Amino acid sequence: MLLMFVLMAGVASAQQNLWQSAGVVSPEVCEDGSVVFRYFAPDAESVAVVGDFASGAQSMAMSDNGVWELRTAPLASEYYTYTFVVDGNEGILDRSNVYTVRDVGSVMNYFIVGGGCGDLYKAQRVPHGAVSRVWATTEGRSRRMTVYTPAGYEADYRNYPVLYLLHGMGGDEEAWVATGRVAEIMDNLIAEGRVEPMIVVMPNGCMRHDAAPGYSEEGFYKPYMSGSMDGSFEEYFADVVAWTDAHYRTYPTKERRAIAGLSMGGFHAMQISKRYPDMFDYVGLFSAAIYRGEEGVAMYENLDAGIAEQFARGVALYWIGIGEDDFLYDENVRFRALLDSHDYEYEYVESAGGHTWRNWRCYLTTFAERLF
Amino acid sequence: MLLMFVLMAGVASAQQNLWQSAGVVSPEVCEDGSVVFRYFAPDAESVAVVGDFASGAQSMAMSDNGVWELRTAPLASEYYTYTFVVDGNEGILDRSNVYTVRDVGSVMNYFIVGGGCGDLYKAQRVPHGAVSRVWATTEGRSRRMTVYTPAGYEADYRNYPVLYLLHGMGGDEEAWVATGRVAEIMDNLIAEGRVEPMIVVMPNGCMRHDAAPGYSEEGFYKPYMSGSMDGSFEEYFADVVAWTDAHYRTYPTKERRAIAGLSMGGFHAMQISKRYPDMFDYVGLFSAAIYRGEEGVAMYENLDAGIAEQFARGVALYWIGIGEDDFLYDENVRFRALLDSHDYEYEYVESAGGHTWRNWRCYLTTFAERLF
Repeated sequence: MLLMFVLMAGVASAQQNLWQSAGVVSPEVCEDGSVVFRYFAPDAESVAVVGDFASGAQSMAMSDNGVWELRTAPLASEYYTYTFVVDGNEGILDRSNVYTVRDVGSVMNYFIVGGGCGDLYKAQRVPHGAVSRVWATTEGRSRRMTVYTPAGYEADYRNYPVLYLLHGMGGDEEAWVATGRVAEIMDNLIAEGRVEPMIVVMPNGCMRHDAAPGYSEEGFYKPYMSGSMDGSFEEYFADVVAWTDAHYRTYPTKERRAIAGLSMGGFHAMQISKRYPDMFDYVGLFSAAIYRGEEGVAMYENLDAGIAEQFARGVALYWIGIGEDDFLYDENVRFRALLDSHDYEYEYVESAGGHTWRNWRCYLTTFAERLF
Repeated sequence: MLLMFVLMAGVASAQQNLWQSAGVVSPEVCEDGSVVFRYFAPDAESVAVVGDFASGAQSMAMSDNGVWELRTAPLASEYYTYTFVVDGNEGILDRSNVYTVRDVGSVMNYFIVGGGCGDLYKAQRVPHGAVSRVWATTEGRSRRMTVYTPAGYEADYRNYPVLYLLHGMGGDEEAWVATGRVAEIMDNLIAEGRVEPMIVVMPNGCMRHDAAPGYSEEGFYKPYMSGSMDGSFEEYFADVVAWTDAHYRTYPTKERRAIAGLSMGGFHAMQISKRYPDMFDYVGLFSAAIYRGEEGVAMYENLDAGIAEQFARGVALYWIGIGEDDFLYDENVRFRALLDSHDYEYEYVESAGGHTWRNWRCYLTTFAERLF
């Protein structure tokens, strides 16, 4: 033990990164779901915490030892993100919490309150699937994508259905496994027998980038709200499906393929499933940016006729979810009116809240349970 | 374009995480290798930057607009980490730099200065291998590991040699792909024809954890300096190799297997290759903690006899690297004296510096070029 201690001290000092906030626990998730945030800043004049657990900055109070503190009321079970505001400077990360997540160009801390849907977003003692970052080379071009294969995939010889899951504007192939908690959600739902074991393929939906920031020769730029709504991603998507079918043990049939996405990805799911009406039997539009495609793109025109053709060919499940406060709410009303005018069958979930990952994780859970 | 702008604004505001430091570029890596750090804190009394580009905290100066700034002298090409110290509070992350890395219990920002070895640590326009987080189930127990497969692995039918690459105390299966830049190093070395395409398997070398922090049912604890030096990891390792051979297209022979590790991982590589003398033809000890095993562990006793047996069975390459300032330097001298006393052949690299990732990335590059 002494030797081990000496080794530890040596390593820490040599690396010059000994953890600075020893003794400060933050966030502390209490049994009743209340959460205590703490931040050591003895000379600060004000510290607040901003996160999706409450609306607006929440002022913290300083205790004797230089630690600013705030205890919340009990929070609903959920995955939450937050940062601190110190003397008016926003975006300060919690030095006591090594769990960070990047969403587009922001880095935030996160924590999970269990006891409800939050339990789905945590790794549990269940069989775990694998998460791979692969480079799909098609037509001489390589693009990175993230692939979830369910527990047991390596050990058996059976085929699996595939869910193609698309990110929003400014996102990339990391978004759904990071803030979206896809691996944890799928592991847990499969273990509970609530969803069919499936492969989840998460490509990069912005054609001007081959990979998430830092993973391509573009280097370490600051991520921004980029996306592709000019038809190029939709045209490319047949290659994604062909590559997946060639490299994974899929069922290469419409009956065993689903496509879903959030915001721009919901738009992509709508357009792609319409563009290839014999490819996907399950379609999920999560807070979809239905009417945001660029002008003058041929495949975006005649939406009514395209949807008619798609429904004529058959759709096992057309699923729409949106929050009542979502800025895209009205265009989803308009799109549902189009569907209703032809009596096309679809399922519709209207949730509380707006254009948030909280909703998208819920929609994924609900949608996945309806698949295959 | 107008529609796209409206969509972007809507998304950003709805997610309540609009990037706060718009306009502040940090770090700015200049053509001559000098780097400008910037931090917006108009009310701070002092701001400094601490990182492995210099020794000790470097004071920054405030400019008119509330932005603190420091320009370094030209830096050698390298991967660097840093944090800020604001009014004496250490460990503050750069709000302008979304690129962060966790090393044990510390989160830091990073950047790369190109033009030398730093180019090996960046994604370049070369074919990219895949990086997978898999769960290896052996003897009823699942443990997570990271596996790099070289570009082309999915598309061909050939077999590949395997390098088993082990982390240090407090590390986990994320360490070598995070700070160790393994995927970028291997991609670039393979593309340049400097190393044989190979699979790299990075298991978790701490038996009390099944996975890196946050990826097991242990939840979101703060990572600490944990490790296994009680023989349990070495005994388990045969399962890791068997699982790898069963699930990847390997050459399941000694001639096509290498094992290397840093610090505790160097100790593991030494012990494991000795424990299974017919398993590995290539052994790499990077800043190895040679004499830090727990007392009373049978396999750690009679080192001389064990090494004798290993060398009698044959070792294609026994490679040792250590920094002249490393706190483990003396015990590497002692170990080399043991090897020398029997005229066992080994290669030895003594570098500048200490017990640092900078050295370990270099050692990996040098060692990988000598494999297979």
